[in-house]
Amino acid sequence: MERVSRQACFGGWQDVYRFDSKSLAGSATVGVYLPPQAEQRKLPVLYWLSGLTCTEQNFISKAGAQRYAAEHGVILVAPDTSPRGDQVADADRYDLGQGAGFYLNATRQPWAAHYRMYDFVVEELPGWIESHFPASDRRAISGHSMGGHGALVIALRNQSRYRSVSAFAPIVAPTQVPWGELAFSTYLGEDRLSWQDYDATALLTRLGWRHGSILIDQGEADDFLDSQLQPQRLREAAAAVNAPLHLRLQPGYDHSYYFIASFVGEHIAHHAAALQD
Amino acid sequence: MERVSRQACFGGWQDVYRFDSKSLAGSATVGVYLPPQAEQRKLPVLYWLSGLTCTEQNFISKAGAQRYAAEHGVILVAPDTSPRGDQVADADRYDLGQGAGFYLNATRQPWAAHYRMYDFVVEELPGWIESHFPASDRRAISGHSMGGHGALVIALRNQSRYRSVSAFAPIVAPTQVPWGELAFSTYLGEDRLSWQDYDATALLTRLGWRHGSILIDQGEADDFLDSQLQPQRLREAAAAVNAPLHLRLQPGYDHSYYFIASFVGEHIAHHAAALQD
Repeated sequence: MERVSRQACFGGWQDVYRFDSKSLAGSATVGVYLPPQAEQRKLPVLYWLSGLTCTEQNFISKAGAQRYAAEHGVILVAPDTSPRGDQVADADRYDLGQGAGFYLNATRQPWAAHYRMYDFVVEELPGWIESHFPASDRRAISGHSMGGHGALVIALRNQSRYRSVSAFAPIVAPTQVPWGELAFSTYLGEDRLSWQDYDATALLTRLGWRHGSILIDQGEADDFLDSQLQPQRLREAAAAVNAPLHLRLQPGYDHSYYFIASFVGEHIAHHAAALQD
Repeated sequence: MERVSRQACFGGWQDVYRFDSKSLAGSATVGVYLPPQAEQRKLPVLYWLSGLTCTEQNFISKAGAQRYAAEHGVILVAPDTSPRGDQVADADRYDLGQGAGFYLNATRQPWAAHYRMYDFVVEELPGWIESHFPASDRRAISGHSMGGHGALVIALRNQSRYRSVSAFAPIVAPTQVPWGELAFSTYLGEDRLSWQDYDATALLTRLGWRHGSILIDQGEADDFLDSQLQPQRLREAAAAVNAPLHLRLQPGYDHSYYFIASFVGEHIAHHAAALQD
């Protein structure tokens, strides 16, 4: 593993690492924020999954989350959003290929060779974090847009591995909206039954949620709200299975990091409470 | 004037405006954060001057300052760092020309036609802010690196216009270091006497400071500390004239926005106290 950068931040360290990933069959880039408490003891970890076009940089440079992580003693882990590199398949659009991994294991070629972000985030990344840093196995997960989709899907399918989940403006029903339909048909093929394992609304209906409240913030001025996000679908599923969903519609807020920055402190407080022993 | 963007942020609005500037003989771009209290009453203003290569975007997207401005009820105003455009003189380097205005009034051609950031920040910008927004004439000023230089110079020369000044990793003695020597000889010419009006250390020695503590944070791991910043020069000047300088050397911190984000809350609290009626 290589430490790409290290910068002091709120009494701790904002690092970026690169290491060889088996899941991705290539190198993975990951932002890791170690709050000051990491000098003394093992800490719980909040995984953050970013949205379309993002790398690990967006969250670590724009969300202002380190302040709250330092307050609560939580490690923040923010991976890049897809495999990268010349040898990795790509598409000439922002919502497919590099920067648009959708946190799934692709089954179609040429994607299947590297696009295994689901395995990477669920298994390999926590294993790497917990063996290289003062990190406990108490895990929470959150994300934005495509990353909100990833966080919900991963938490719902791995309820023994995550104690808490939240999301900002997530794609809650990718099988029903253009971003998801394009990505899933490309990465998974036309068998729509296989898509259900990556659809948070379908998963919540099927599996429920055994932990505390699922916190979701959604801006009402988000340009993608009606076409791609449709949080009411998840609300209906939660109501049907009596799952504890706390969906907050935030007037005036759009899809940007100004929205995330405004509420990420409350999300980190929410996760920190769930991550306490 | 044109509103380039408006985004909800911490209960207020992060806006960017563009308007025709007389000082710059062209358009000026300015970030304006209006905290929620601006709906009710006139608020004091903190002006932020950014460093080399920056536009108005760096501070508004990376510093996380809006949270503190919303807590304290302070408007944040962050102008671009120079005149811009095809008709504006430029240089093929990062530390001269567009993005490197050094907050002075150039006297040499071709720079003198547009490079009048001193007049812009001291006169035109506050006039524009106070006539278009719920802004009082209670002003504070801060900045980073080249912008820390600008904030100190502007506050020291206009002590009746600013109640408070602070800086992050400022160029405190530009007449003594390479960045300043290049910029001043280019923009002002070889008469070094004329440079003294833009040197914070010389100005503090000459004029003193009539208000409360000048707060300066400087990272000890800053790559530019010894070559370009040299805060001990300002400390010596402050000691000689008995000026209230609070210079904090911060172990581990570098020159980046992670450093600014870590301490900007304390700077805003410092200014908010000085700006109270």
